[in-house]
Amino acid sequence: MAELLEDFPPGPLDKYRSKASFDWKKMKLVLENEDILRFKVTIMKTLERDPLFQRSSATPRLDEERRRATQQMYRVLQYDFPSRAEGLDERAKASAVGSCLSHYDPSLAVKIGLSFGLFKQAIVNLGTERHGHFVKDNTEGRIAGCFALTEVAHGSNAKGMMTTATYDPATQEFILHSPNFESAKFWVGCLGKTCTHAVVFAQLITPDGSNHGLHAFVVPVRSTATLLPHAGVVVGDLGEKVGLNGIDNGFVMFDNYRVPRENLLNKTGDVTPDGAYVTPINDPRKRFGAVLGNLSAGRVSIIGSCTQYLTKAMTIAVRYSAVRRQFGPSDDEELPVIEYQLQQWRVFPYLAAAYAFINFSNFFTSVMMDFSKNSGRTEDMMTLGAEIHGLSSGAKPLCAWLARDGIQECREACGGHGYLKAAGLGDLRNNNDACCTYEGENSVLVQQNSNWLLQLWARRGDRSDKPFASPMGSVGFLAHADRLLAARFSASSADEAVRPEAILAAYRWLVCYLLRSFDEKVRSLRKQGLDSFEAKNNSQAYFARNLSVAFVEHFIILKFWQLATSKNMAPNLQAVLVKLCSLFGAWRLEKHLTTLYEGRYVSGSGPARMLRDGILQLCAQLKPEAVALADAVAPPDFFLNSVLGRSDGQVYRNIQAAVYQTPQAFERPAWWRDVTAWQAQSKL
Amino acid sequence: MAELLEDFPPGPLDKYRSKASFDWKKMKLVLENEDILRFKVTIMKTLERDPLFQRSSATPRLDEERRRATQQMYRVLQYDFPSRAEGLDERAKASAVGSCLSHYDPSLAVKIGLSFGLFKQAIVNLGTERHGHFVKDNTEGRIAGCFALTEVAHGSNAKGMMTTATYDPATQEFILHSPNFESAKFWVGCLGKTCTHAVVFAQLITPDGSNHGLHAFVVPVRSTATLLPHAGVVVGDLGEKVGLNGIDNGFVMFDNYRVPRENLLNKTGDVTPDGAYVTPINDPRKRFGAVLGNLSAGRVSIIGSCTQYLTKAMTIAVRYSAVRRQFGPSDDEELPVIEYQLQQWRVFPYLAAAYAFINFSNFFTSVMMDFSKNSGRTEDMMTLGAEIHGLSSGAKPLCAWLARDGIQECREACGGHGYLKAAGLGDLRNNNDACCTYEGENSVLVQQNSNWLLQLWARRGDRSDKPFASPMGSVGFLAHADRLLAARFSASSADEAVRPEAILAAYRWLVCYLLRSFDEKVRSLRKQGLDSFEAKNNSQAYFARNLSVAFVEHFIILKFWQLATSKNMAPNLQAVLVKLCSLFGAWRLEKHLTTLYEGRYVSGSGPARMLRDGILQLCAQLKPEAVALADAVAPPDFFLNSVLGRSDGQVYRNIQAAVYQTPQAFERPAWWRDVTAWQAQSKL
Repeated sequence: MAELLEDFPPGPLDKYRSKASFDWKKMKLVLENEDILRFKVTIMKTLERDPLFQRSSATPRLDEERRRATQQMYRVLQYDFPSRAEGLDERAKASAVGSCLSHYDPSLAVKIGLSFGLFKQAIVNLGTERHGHFVKDNTEGRIAGCFALTEVAHGSNAKGMMTTATYDPATQEFILHSPNFESAKFWVGCLGKTCTHAVVFAQLITPDGSNHGLHAFVVPVRSTATLLPHAGVVVGDLGEKVGLNGIDNGFVMFDNYRVPRENLLNKTGDVTPDGAYVTPINDPRKRFGAVLGNLSAGRVSIIGSCTQYLTKAMTIAVRYSAVRRQFGPSDDEELPVIEYQLQQWRVFPYLAAAYAFINFSNFFTSVMMDFSKNSGRTEDMMTLGAEIHGLSSGAKPLCAWLARDGIQECREACGGHGYLKAAGLGDLRNNNDACCTYEGENSVLVQQNSNWLLQLWARRGDRSDKPFASPMGSVGFLAHADRLLAARFSASSADEAVRPEAILAAYRWLVCYLLRSFDEKVRSLRKQGLDSFEAKNNSQAYFARNLSVAFVEHFIILKFWQLATSKNMAPNLQAVLVKLCSLFGAWRLEKHLTTLYEGRYVSGSGPARMLRDGILQLCAQLKPEAVALADAVAPPDFFLNSVLGRSDGQVYRNIQAAVYQTPQAFERPAWWRDVTAWQAQSKL
Repeated sequence: MAELLEDFPPGPLDKYRSKASFDWKKMKLVLENEDILRFKVTIMKTLERDPLFQRSSATPRLDEERRRATQQMYRVLQYDFPSRAEGLDERAKASAVGSCLSHYDPSLAVKIGLSFGLFKQAIVNLGTERHGHFVKDNTEGRIAGCFALTEVAHGSNAKGMMTTATYDPATQEFILHSPNFESAKFWVGCLGKTCTHAVVFAQLITPDGSNHGLHAFVVPVRSTATLLPHAGVVVGDLGEKVGLNGIDNGFVMFDNYRVPRENLLNKTGDVTPDGAYVTPINDPRKRFGAVLGNLSAGRVSIIGSCTQYLTKAMTIAVRYSAVRRQFGPSDDEELPVIEYQLQQWRVFPYLAAAYAFINFSNFFTSVMMDFSKNSGRTEDMMTLGAEIHGLSSGAKPLCAWLARDGIQECREACGGHGYLKAAGLGDLRNNNDACCTYEGENSVLVQQNSNWLLQLWARRGDRSDKPFASPMGSVGFLAHADRLLAARFSASSADEAVRPEAILAAYRWLVCYLLRSFDEKVRSLRKQGLDSFEAKNNSQAYFARNLSVAFVEHFIILKFWQLATSKNMAPNLQAVLVKLCSLFGAWRLEKHLTTLYEGRYVSGSGPARMLRDGILQLCAQLKPEAVALADAVAPPDFFLNSVLGRSDGQVYRNIQAAVYQTPQAFERPAWWRDVTAWQAQSKL
């Protein structure tokens, strides 16, 4: 393991590193398979040595950002990392590569993922043998693709989309058309500058005038020889975004643009040469569901992104807090800010959250790998598919929100220097921000989670239906709702209140209570005459939304607890993991205290005080462990890319180097004469 | 008034505009003095017409951002706006100019405020007649200044600073010296590129070796003829930040750099030509307090900035929500997202918050103007000074935090398009972020508020001391703590629960309860043997911090309530203002429900449900008013600068224009041959 994981350089962090009760390398291997880790180290070292991957000292212009991401994308394809690892599952390899690239630059990872991943996956999932040549060309790098679903005026509500594909039997072609700018495909990653082909979703219209709903087409948009758009395709770049500017998001409008009949991805519906629509699935809703089913994979990968962002932000804040000194018991002595309870309370819960997320993301990713291997349509697989959809619809928003809050808290916990671009926290925030929106705007997406739970709840009495069958284990406890709802808080000390068993028991009550309340709320609104659409809409705030959050939190805590208490876990690692699990659980539960009081699970001043005291005690207990815990999950410095978070702890030397190396840092501006002229012309 | 405020262009927002129960122009005049408004309109129209103030279609490079801000700064000085308004107080004029510039670009406002405001103010406050020439040169534009206090390794803890100023009687000079990079003055706005002079804080050391603590010196750093640094001054730019990149923040180190004895700002301490230290204030802490006293003004102006950011973000989200459609009761009908309760619940509380902040910021600004006019050291003025300090130390963090959360919620509420740079929300977030840190890192600064309250509380029994004398009216109610603490929640319906009187009563209980709890916590920790420093540190989370937040919220709600119920308020305006006040108060109070339960102010499920029902009902009632409410406080489109928030409501046309006008939007990249070459070389 010594050759795999290098020791950190000695320096100001030694003081806290030496206090940890465990070896960070052993902790790392709790969270990561050694073979995968070895593969990742190979990838990371390769990137770190490559001149093309060295970072510039100033933010490049937009065009340069796109150029660099594109160059790096092709370089990564040339490296063909998967061929360099033996004995690993192909999906595990792909996931490892994606993780490393994303640590380097999420724009690059997304760009490859779209150009050579999602595009191809969509063709494989939605097409048939006749589309094999597209898959081959894309695999071999001759064409680069994108996935064009969203329109300017329609995001989540896919059924309202306006792009049409009208079949013309005379030429056996589909005529793609965008009636106006509002129907332009928009936000399409890699469409702005570089892709040659797009999977485009359009309303399929047959010569009889029938609209058969959204279908996907493979559409050539640019010449592979010149990269110029084809006539009839109005395609462009949508300019700067809040973050992720390496990705050339674009828009496209079609002006009666023709593609061959065969370009229809025809697994769920086809048009015969003479224009008849044929489909194996009669219900158009189900057809559309099958089309969009594979968005769950995207959500699970976003959970991974949020986990990375949060891990990096937390690492920066923990290491900086161990070095930065402020105030002290006397004028002469200043304390590292990590010594302050308030700083611990701000940062450590996100340290615990990072661990909880890493474990959850690992678990969910492995479930997805198994699921994609066994894509048969057995009842068990259908149940698993529903659970994956329900859980990912709640977990992606929760992880994006907690990463958002964690990055922000870490940003502020680093004080003024956290506002330096070179600290890295601003970029983490701006990049994570997209996670709150794509693959389903968070507040809209969580409704799919709560609606799923509501449906299960409605079938609660029906024993034959096994409503709470749960291959992943997230909903099984709901079968015992009556018993769980009768439980009450019973801890009699802070220690007891924050034990994971107590936290999990409280969460089981909480989820049942919120689910029952949501159900009652919807029923009561329907009795008042609202239809199902309105009744659910008016039960989101305080009901459905809190339910989804609590449901996902419960499951993340449960998986973390299972990890911490798994067999063969070394006792010293287990002791720390249990503390992290306690802290994460108690800290999240504390946010629900109002509901616990409202539903009388707790009463009086004791429970709130015990829970809060317990949280503060856990923070104190984790103080000597925090730096080593960050070390165990932090990416190498080249990937962390933060002057405040480098593993050497030389915060001020690193700031100095970054500032001094800023282009023109010491030069007077080229426009100095303007300034002195204004000054000389005074009095103004 | 018609010539002062133009009507909005007809368009998609008409539907909601026409539903409002009031005239937005009349509402505007509730919040703004008509003469001031007229002056602001003049300034804004001037800027909007000036070619130098037109915005570019892409983010300029860092150097260009600094150049433009500098050009604009001198242009604003040339405009000499204050001379164009008659009959207004000079301070009111300055505030109006600052507000307009800040709406255009906060970097510009900060840059002028530092170069020609804070620098001069520091000299006036800390210096004597002998420094008049600096003031004159700065006023007349011949020199530009900055304010250099913070060092690399010392932010909040000013006493630990390492820059020294050692007096040399042989030449009657001070020798400024920075022992290392950690002692470099850092984050100094306008020092990076453009300023010629700095007010520098350094430990004053007399020839006998005594350190007399931090003192301020006027230090020439660059030649006014060449803008080159003087020998012995190592000065540079600290590079990119998360936001506010128009400001050239810089650093400076002194290498035994000499300035004349007279450059010491000597109001609170001086050195005689032969090197003796003389001072009218014996306690060095008080001396330093006098030096830093004027930072309150900075905090009050940050409250104004946060108010602007929040107002803009809210305006963008409200207008966009009234136009953007998503889903609907049937597949054919899509609803504007403002129709959804969840969207209302996400955005409208921040609409209410913007109103509450505008009123509070107006109030606090006018208090500061009166205070600076009457700077005598009477007992009343001392009391007011303490209240200003205590209140601004709590209010600046609260406003920065709520603006932070509001901008983020509005960003997400605008979905994918909110992630466009042209939406403006990313910049608002990145700029507001600085408000959480400067003039006191929020979490550190609020402690000055809670410590002030704790001191007052300790003197509670002492009737002769008038501990709760409160010229601003923020703490008077604490005198009745015993009675207030005996009160209990008494509303019996949602309507009653959200009435401002009920909210304010709950807050009075809450503040007393939290203050008493904080006091008890500190006492109990001291009994356990902790010293005062530790005891307070370990009483921040859940105690002191919640106290400060609740205290400031109470006062903001109170001031808003006083506005809404002020004499001569038109009944239709009053009706809406009361709803906004109710919503803001109830929404903030809801966050404290755990404490209300813990302290038994409420019990059972009724109170939480009533409060939450009341919030949702208020949101529904404000739906028809929301667009007009945004209109009444929104800056003109040129200043709002958002494709989603323009007053014409033509969201998609505005997006189209912005995207099409992006440089190179339709061009293939200059590096297209690289891409096609890679593709041709395949198989990779």
